[in-house]
Amino acid sequence: METPWEYRYANRTKRMGSSVIRELLKLTEQPDIISFAGGLPAPEVFPVKKFQEACNIVLETMGAQALQYSTTEGYRPLREMIARHTARYSVNVDPDNILITSGSQQALDFIGRVFINQGDHIVVESPTYLGAIQAWNAYGAQYISVPSDEHGMIVDELEKALRIGPKFIYVLPNFQNPTGTTLALERRKQLVELADRYGVPIIEDDPYGQLRYEGEHLPSVVMLDSQHQGNNGHTYSGNVIYMSTFSKLLAPGLRLAWVIAPKEVIRKLVQSKQAADLHTATFNQVVAYEVGKGGFLDEHVKVIRATYKERRDVMLEMMAEVFPSEVRWTHPEGGMFLWGILPEGMDAAEVLKRAIEYKVAFVPGGPFHPNGGGENTMRINFSYSNPEVIREGITRLGNVLKELIVKK
Amino acid sequence: METPWEYRYANRTKRMGSSVIRELLKLTEQPDIISFAGGLPAPEVFPVKKFQEACNIVLETMGAQALQYSTTEGYRPLREMIARHTARYSVNVDPDNILITSGSQQALDFIGRVFINQGDHIVVESPTYLGAIQAWNAYGAQYISVPSDEHGMIVDELEKALRIGPKFIYVLPNFQNPTGTTLALERRKQLVELADRYGVPIIEDDPYGQLRYEGEHLPSVVMLDSQHQGNNGHTYSGNVIYMSTFSKLLAPGLRLAWVIAPKEVIRKLVQSKQAADLHTATFNQVVAYEVGKGGFLDEHVKVIRATYKERRDVMLEMMAEVFPSEVRWTHPEGGMFLWGILPEGMDAAEVLKRAIEYKVAFVPGGPFHPNGGGENTMRINFSYSNPEVIREGITRLGNVLKELIVKK
Repeated sequence: METPWEYRYANRTKRMGSSVIRELLKLTEQPDIISFAGGLPAPEVFPVKKFQEACNIVLETMGAQALQYSTTEGYRPLREMIARHTARYSVNVDPDNILITSGSQQALDFIGRVFINQGDHIVVESPTYLGAIQAWNAYGAQYISVPSDEHGMIVDELEKALRIGPKFIYVLPNFQNPTGTTLALERRKQLVELADRYGVPIIEDDPYGQLRYEGEHLPSVVMLDSQHQGNNGHTYSGNVIYMSTFSKLLAPGLRLAWVIAPKEVIRKLVQSKQAADLHTATFNQVVAYEVGKGGFLDEHVKVIRATYKERRDVMLEMMAEVFPSEVRWTHPEGGMFLWGILPEGMDAAEVLKRAIEYKVAFVPGGPFHPNGGGENTMRINFSYSNPEVIREGITRLGNVLKELIVKK
Repeated sequence: METPWEYRYANRTKRMGSSVIRELLKLTEQPDIISFAGGLPAPEVFPVKKFQEACNIVLETMGAQALQYSTTEGYRPLREMIARHTARYSVNVDPDNILITSGSQQALDFIGRVFINQGDHIVVESPTYLGAIQAWNAYGAQYISVPSDEHGMIVDELEKALRIGPKFIYVLPNFQNPTGTTLALERRKQLVELADRYGVPIIEDDPYGQLRYEGEHLPSVVMLDSQHQGNNGHTYSGNVIYMSTFSKLLAPGLRLAWVIAPKEVIRKLVQSKQAADLHTATFNQVVAYEVGKGGFLDEHVKVIRATYKERRDVMLEMMAEVFPSEVRWTHPEGGMFLWGILPEGMDAAEVLKRAIEYKVAFVPGGPFHPNGGGENTMRINFSYSNPEVIREGITRLGNVLKELIVKK
């Protein structure tokens, strides 16, 4: 029987599902399971000592300010630091182009709040980031899926999608979650040109851009758009909203991320944030600035890169060794995930059930496809587990796959 | 001319105004202005040393966990601490009745998200908390104002409002923001009974409940509802959603608050939070637990009470001395605000403009009335400024009022 509370829920509440990923993660939280399911950074690389120093300095020198209410836009020195960092990649932004958010998920939510009317179409790569779909489902978005391959979104298929009149295009160009693939340079340029031609904005989600383990850094979409718009020397006011985060560079438990956008868009996002949570925790922003201000991040990211590169390499090596030849997978140049592709007709959710019996876990790829498909795909995280655990986990997963593929 | 971005905004974006309070606060941020406008705790009472100790302990003993992603519901030991605290006031809740939010503003937002359809009616006290109006305007709420007097909402007027079929009733029973008044015990009982009779839920917002400077603590609405429902000994599953916050007990810069609700409602709020920001900062929750766990809060709240009581007393005394006899004001038994009432026909916004020239500020009361009115009222904060500053500020404000009232 329904309870009186259920009769009071808003229509949008009926669209809410519990996060598929979260529910799966619950299954895999048993301590004896080797989980490649989460998207967790390695706790070994958290700069705990540096944090401790920063907390002490902040509380000793500016405790009252760090614990008080602060502005919705975010702590100005932190925004200035981000602006300087962004300028290194040839995009001219100033602090008023930047909003600090409580994690990237909040930036996705605010973008939905500001832009999406019930029934609006959003162009996404297929597969795409599940957190974005969750955020935007709450606003009644529909999705136009553009297929992708090992070089990211197949931009030749984009024009068809743009003619439908979407609200915006959402891309994760670097080491995409879930596939680990990177959007090729030529495709980035083509994307910027097409979006400009059709007047459709781009949301560039870039949580992992700094975490490259091989190959050359590629210019961001916002940078290419800045060039395309002839914005040389001027503050950015183009066609792209760019997002990134401290979750992968420092620690996700701080919930600190940022959005870069034309100032008028930032003003609307700020109004969303006033209504949503007033401002991001002052203390966290001040501490993150204290940690980051002396060039520490540049040094620290080298440690993260070395750690994750080793883990990726071990995982790729083990997969080549133990996975049946029918299984394929991506070779990510950075980030935290790779993508496994099972033989057509196999169901990764069924594989997961069996894998949990073998005490190993991953995320089935189906839910990353907003319009269905991808049942034979799987997202596998390589950042969280150490090399030894990766060897054991991939061995177990190899055994599951051999068993199920032979059975077929 | 409108820019291309403006044509992309969702309909709800057009309803967004920048926060009236925030815009006013900007005016009053000049350092030589004595501001009674904000709702800021006194930084002198932030337990900075205790925080520093807690940060050090947390980072030394559980740094990796404190900096990692965590569950949407919130840090379990913190929820257990809140459950124990709540049980002292005779409401049986367990951790699954509790969601940790990034400040109370986020709890208000999630309540809007879960319950409010465009055009739904919400019963509010008039005047009521501006942050709630801001949060719920984003969901297209309309308001039914119930008038209030020095004992809070005039509950005799409530039944008329309930017959309109509102989604819920929103009340701040203790030392209300903005008026500083407290809902009388008999009215609380009447409210609970009426709400139950009409099947309309109550949102009880209680940021200041612990900050009482005189008189007896009154039972919360959720506690009276628990009794009314005959919930003795059972986990709470009644008609009230209760909200409170660490912003006033510890420090607002942590952005930590909580919601207590029947478990099924918590599940819906958790789904909102998954889409909105995944979870509240782990570090802040773990540190707040470390600060609070040994009974520190009970001791610390005594310090806050003593500090704010003195400030309230100084302000009341000064007002009696220097305000023209045409002006009236409330006598709050706790909290952070009092409410000034100017002669009918006077416009507090005009008074503010003149006051800023005299280098003193407050918030005009008009915006706290969602259906208009109250132009002759003003919210005055007494928690932030020290007694000396309060004396000087009220003297200045008295001079402004004398000047303007004589002129009339």
